[in-house]
Amino acid sequence: MSTKVIAPSRLRPRSPAVVKVRQVGIALYGYGTVGSALAHIIAERRQWLEAEHGIALALKHVTVRDPTRERVPHVEPRDLTRDWQRGLRDPAVDVVVELIGGTEVALDVAHGALSFGKHLVTANKAVIANHGPELEILAQRAGVLLRYEGAVGGAIPVLRVLRTSLATDRIRRVRGILNGTTNYILTRMEEDGLPFFRALAKAGALGYAEADPSADVSGTDAAHKLVILARHAFGRWLPVSAVKTSGIERVSLGDFEEARRNGQTLKLIANADATNGAVSLKVGLETVPLTEPLARIANELNAIELQAEYAGPLLLRGRGAGGQPTASAVYADLVEVATAVEPS
Amino acid sequence: MSTKVIAPSRLRPRSPAVVKVRQVGIALYGYGTVGSALAHIIAERRQWLEAEHGIALALKHVTVRDPTRERVPHVEPRDLTRDWQRGLRDPAVDVVVELIGGTEVALDVAHGALSFGKHLVTANKAVIANHGPELEILAQRAGVLLRYEGAVGGAIPVLRVLRTSLATDRIRRVRGILNGTTNYILTRMEEDGLPFFRALAKAGALGYAEADPSADVSGTDAAHKLVILARHAFGRWLPVSAVKTSGIERVSLGDFEEARRNGQTLKLIANADATNGAVSLKVGLETVPLTEPLARIANELNAIELQAEYAGPLLLRGRGAGGQPTASAVYADLVEVATAVEPS
Repeated sequence: MSTKVIAPSRLRPRSPAVVKVRQVGIALYGYGTVGSALAHIIAERRQWLEAEHGIALALKHVTVRDPTRERVPHVEPRDLTRDWQRGLRDPAVDVVVELIGGTEVALDVAHGALSFGKHLVTANKAVIANHGPELEILAQRAGVLLRYEGAVGGAIPVLRVLRTSLATDRIRRVRGILNGTTNYILTRMEEDGLPFFRALAKAGALGYAEADPSADVSGTDAAHKLVILARHAFGRWLPVSAVKTSGIERVSLGDFEEARRNGQTLKLIANADATNGAVSLKVGLETVPLTEPLARIANELNAIELQAEYAGPLLLRGRGAGGQPTASAVYADLVEVATAVEPS
Repeated sequence: MSTKVIAPSRLRPRSPAVVKVRQVGIALYGYGTVGSALAHIIAERRQWLEAEHGIALALKHVTVRDPTRERVPHVEPRDLTRDWQRGLRDPAVDVVVELIGGTEVALDVAHGALSFGKHLVTANKAVIANHGPELEILAQRAGVLLRYEGAVGGAIPVLRVLRTSLATDRIRRVRGILNGTTNYILTRMEEDGLPFFRALAKAGALGYAEADPSADVSGTDAAHKLVILARHAFGRWLPVSAVKTSGIERVSLGDFEEARRNGQTLKLIANADATNGAVSLKVGLETVPLTEPLARIANELNAIELQAEYAGPLLLRGRGAGGQPTASAVYADLVEVATAVEPS
């Protein structure tokens, strides 16, 4: 009897004999907050990855809007390109990492990667929520892996927990705070008494809010993440339009005062319920009793409560936004994929 | 290029063609709270496991102290035995599940299972904390898997998170509430003003405390779990004697009053620190500010805070004790092992 599972890295005694290092070629799309943080982690973990898994990640193409700009960490000019098809056509590229955001070029890159038989790692919740079913089929046909842990909950490994530990359980409900920007705004309103637009401006100044914050503020970003969570919790893709979505645009300091008088606060809650077989999805402002754990999730933190039949209630909390937390999830996906790639 | 990773079950489209069901033989040791809850989950998830993974778990031997007692769920009398060597000698047994607790027979069963080339799944923290290094070597020599998610944090999948998502990160600190019995006692003292021995008696009456609660109350149980967590967080086994351990035996209601005056409460905290390369382990009663998440972990809940370099702080919270939560973790391990077993 033999096993096809590889012992987890920390549990495998290191062999003193040097294993031949295998190169895994990467094409990276986007070198903004998350992309550059990922490059930083790849560089810092190079030795560990070679020693532990015998793998060297080679950043072969970095596709950006402006290839002339100096990049930190440094990228060799010959590896920088505007041509998004370059990485897809290179047979030495095994994995495409898409971190440009948006849904236009990003979707082309995703389609292209899977069509060319490359594994795809992305943190793009809009692309996955809107096109997950077709991308899954493409990946399956090509026999490649599609991973997007960074798309939901930043550093919180909720998708992997659903895919592994809880795959054997039955999930009844998923409920959480999935958008760091709006949670930061609500926290500033509650704790500092800042009016909505001033709190929004502060989120923008700190880099929590996008140049166009409408996807965050309207609840759309949380709705995307909820669709992805529901896929992994309940086994099916529901359209984004199935999420009953409202945002935080109309919340006032008076609403917070009233909530406080009732021992509550206001949070943008994403909720997916599968109690009666049918799955219902909802994103909206809710009053949450101060005694509930979600009431205490402050600033840019995210938290997800999973209600499982056997495991019972589980709460996962962590940094839901920011370059490094998101890049940590992307890097974990990248290593999972790289260790699964067999030498060509 | 091909991949050796199996697509996670929920993401793999079901093939309408019926796959031949493969039987995986199980020898179960112990049919108490956790063992019977596991048998219940195995029965309830039988159809799902066949449809999803083409696997049927066959409970071939159930080793108990009194084979004449009627069992719920029912076990065929011919499968019940007192002879703990029977399951180990049966070549039809692929996986041994050890849930008898204690460290005498349990350790014999663990050694025997691995020596006979069986995979081992256990929730026995004392055996793993005290004999982890030798069991790991035995498992590796035999080419079998050793899994014990249920040994730490009940239903909280903290070991799998450390083994998978966070294996690529660097863990700086692990801090948590790891013993449900003492946390229940401390909660009753804090919330209801019950003196220590009355709170302990209440924990016993509700089945949270063992007949002999000394391992819980002295901090030893938490120390065992901390050693296991440290193994997965920092990559090395430290002896249980390295944990600076104290318990909750001397805590008084006066201590709670004093803590409350300072905006604090008292918790039995397990802490593993690797900030300067060296790992230091400690279990003891600590004053925790009421603003900290660990202060609000009540009753039999457990919580673990992981401080990772890239991911940042992560908190996992869930049911740390009880038959079904622990059995849910054992079942997840069992399915992981069963899907990894190649047909003999």
